Amino acid sequence: MARTLSLLGATGSIGASTLDLIRHNRGDWQVEALTANCSAKELAALAIEFDAKIAVVGEESCLDDLRSALEGTGIEAAGGAQALCEAAARPVDMTVAAIVGCAGLAPTMAAVERGGTIALANKEALVSAGEILKSAVERAGATLLPTDSEHNAIFQCLAGNDIAQVRRIILTASGGPFRTLDAQALKSVTREQALKHPNWEMGAKITIDSATMMNKGLEFIEAHHLFPVGLENIEIIVHPQSIVHSMVEYRDRSVLAQLGPSDMRVPIASCLAWPERMDTPLAPLDLAAIGELTFQAPNEELFPATRICREAIEAGGAAPAILNAANEIAVEAFLSGQIAFTRITAVAQETLARYTAHAPGTLEEVLAIDAEARARARTALESSALV
Amino acid sequence: MARTLSLLGATGSIGASTLDLIRHNRGDWQVEALTANCSAKELAALAIEFDAKIAVVGEESCLDDLRSALEGTGIEAAGGAQALCEAAARPVDMTVAAIVGCAGLAPTMAAVERGGTIALANKEALVSAGEILKSAVERAGATLLPTDSEHNAIFQCLAGNDIAQVRRIILTASGGPFRTLDAQALKSVTREQALKHPNWEMGAKITIDSATMMNKGLEFIEAHHLFPVGLENIEIIVHPQSIVHSMVEYRDRSVLAQLGPSDMRVPIASCLAWPERMDTPLAPLDLAAIGELTFQAPNEELFPATRICREAIEAGGAAPAILNAANEIAVEAFLSGQIAFTRITAVAQETLARYTAHAPGTLEEVLAIDAEARARARTALESSALV
Repeated sequence: MARTLSLLGATGSIGASTLDLIRHNRGDWQVEALTANCSAKELAALAIEFDAKIAVVGEESCLDDLRSALEGTGIEAAGGAQALCEAAARPVDMTVAAIVGCAGLAPTMAAVERGGTIALANKEALVSAGEILKSAVERAGATLLPTDSEHNAIFQCLAGNDIAQVRRIILTASGGPFRTLDAQALKSVTREQALKHPNWEMGAKITIDSATMMNKGLEFIEAHHLFPVGLENIEIIVHPQSIVHSMVEYRDRSVLAQLGPSDMRVPIASCLAWPERMDTPLAPLDLAAIGELTFQAPNEELFPATRICREAIEAGGAAPAILNAANEIAVEAFLSGQIAFTRITAVAQETLARYTAHAPGTLEEVLAIDAEARARARTALESSALV
Repeated sequence: MARTLSLLGATGSIGASTLDLIRHNRGDWQVEALTANCSAKELAALAIEFDAKIAVVGEESCLDDLRSALEGTGIEAAGGAQALCEAAARPVDMTVAAIVGCAGLAPTMAAVERGGTIALANKEALVSAGEILKSAVERAGATLLPTDSEHNAIFQCLAGNDIAQVRRIILTASGGPFRTLDAQALKSVTREQALKHPNWEMGAKITIDSATMMNKGLEFIEAHHLFPVGLENIEIIVHPQSIVHSMVEYRDRSVLAQLGPSDMRVPIASCLAWPERMDTPLAPLDLAAIGELTFQAPNEELFPATRICREAIEAGGAAPAILNAANEIAVEAFLSGQIAFTRITAVAQETLARYTAHAPGTLEEVLAIDAEARARARTALESSALV
């Protein structure tokens, strides 16, 4: 029998990978809701292809375009923040939460509060609102399936085991395209160089975050929320080939690792089919052809983002939300040529150092902290442009 | 509360590793029976140290020495094949079956027939008597926990998953000390060179089997019996560092791997504590210090043993038992300087080609086939010494 699925963030990179899997397993799935921020025509085309019940744009101003594109199809169209949350709250067997940034917080929470099973690909939900989200999951009896390749790898390595027996979680990091540069060379890297990730095809924001290692720092925070083994028991190791997606070490020194092609369809498929497995249209991993997997300790002097993230989650409260918001502004500034590469992490750190806020207790408070942190990061940028 | 344990083969390499783990976790275990082939003094000392209820030597002629060594301790002493089986049949929470060779068949079967939980380190039980052992396990409701590092790795990678979702099992092989030699050089390798395994400290027989790759071939047969995924879905990959102990690929292209130090205490601990985990006195795996893990396809032209084993298990029936027995005789002949290294596999193959027997239905039939195969291998050796 077909299972029902809603996909929040259908036109992004995770959305495209999810829909490709559905496309290869059409008989197994019935699509309920597809959402996008604004890309009305693209969204309408997907809604028609996948015979969705409803398509929703987050930007109300894009609703007219969506309506025209869906005219006569019988597919419902809706727009605006409230419509997104209502779509996310519709009962389905599986929700894929793949809206990028803080825009994804409220719809993700809506799916959680319904008590659903959620494949979580939205980093901000855990980084900025980790405690709030976890309380809601517990209250509603929802199930979170981590979709990031690293957290999904850890989730797979924990299957059939007791997390109390874990000694260490080892997050792997590609190290990004600048892993081998020195401090001087790092200052002058360009937007184009930073956008070339060695292993993964991803959106611009996350690709820059991979280059600064901020992505791994944010994943460290996520891992802490998803896998309660203690911050001191989560380590980061640089693994340039991105084949081992993360590892779990048990008390007896057994290390379980999940390996696979650098393709998000693998972890997404693992969530969609959980606790079973499903086929993916990918070639099997050929380790003899790959030849070697290498590992090295991260260089936090050159790439301090992971250290800053660790300090932020140790501080707790509003700190991770502030850091995450400031980093987004700094990445935008780098992408628009406003600041040098090495200033991205510095701006995030400076904003975090100068802004303290009470620990947020609600999503609204998280969003307020996020907005304030963005404003302050912009101010910091104006005083430091191109430094 | 302490769990009870019997250790069949206490004075061998697996026995020593098992007892070292018990030594580090004394409060958790009560030793019931310890057995050895003959080393009476050594066995008595272990029985005293671990406060065993009974010590048994397989060779009845060694029983007098054992009795003297245990005089006044209150520890029971026994000897002979029947006594071994009776000791193995005593009710305990965990039996470690670590007797090397066909001598281990009957005691292992005795533990199985009692319906116990057995950490199985005896290769012959599965290679020579796989179908018989599996029927007995099913009939008695026994639990087999594979203790070989490779099979234990696979067992760990299957935890929490459905074996029906497995696409491929990937057995790793160190490739042995002669991995990089050519055919000419391989002919003249010495006993001393062959006994130097690059990663593992093991007994002489298994070290030579690692050098010829026969060990991996026999493990292929074991894997087939333990993990019913189909012979065509079990692959061998050479991984010289012996850090990844084996892997399981699922339908979605997720590959789970178990990594760890090259120390048998890890897989043994995983069996002893299963389904929980226990501490081991080992340093954690330091992948950054190890630096690289490499992989390559096996070279079956130079090391045909894995191909021969695959053919033997495809043929089924008595073939694996014949191959295993002939190989033991050939390894002995190499160790005593009687034949060249490359003749080991050739003698095993020739014996297999010339001797056909009905599929054994009982352990007695396996032992008869084993004895006949040994006799024939010795004859083959006489006609081909030092060729």
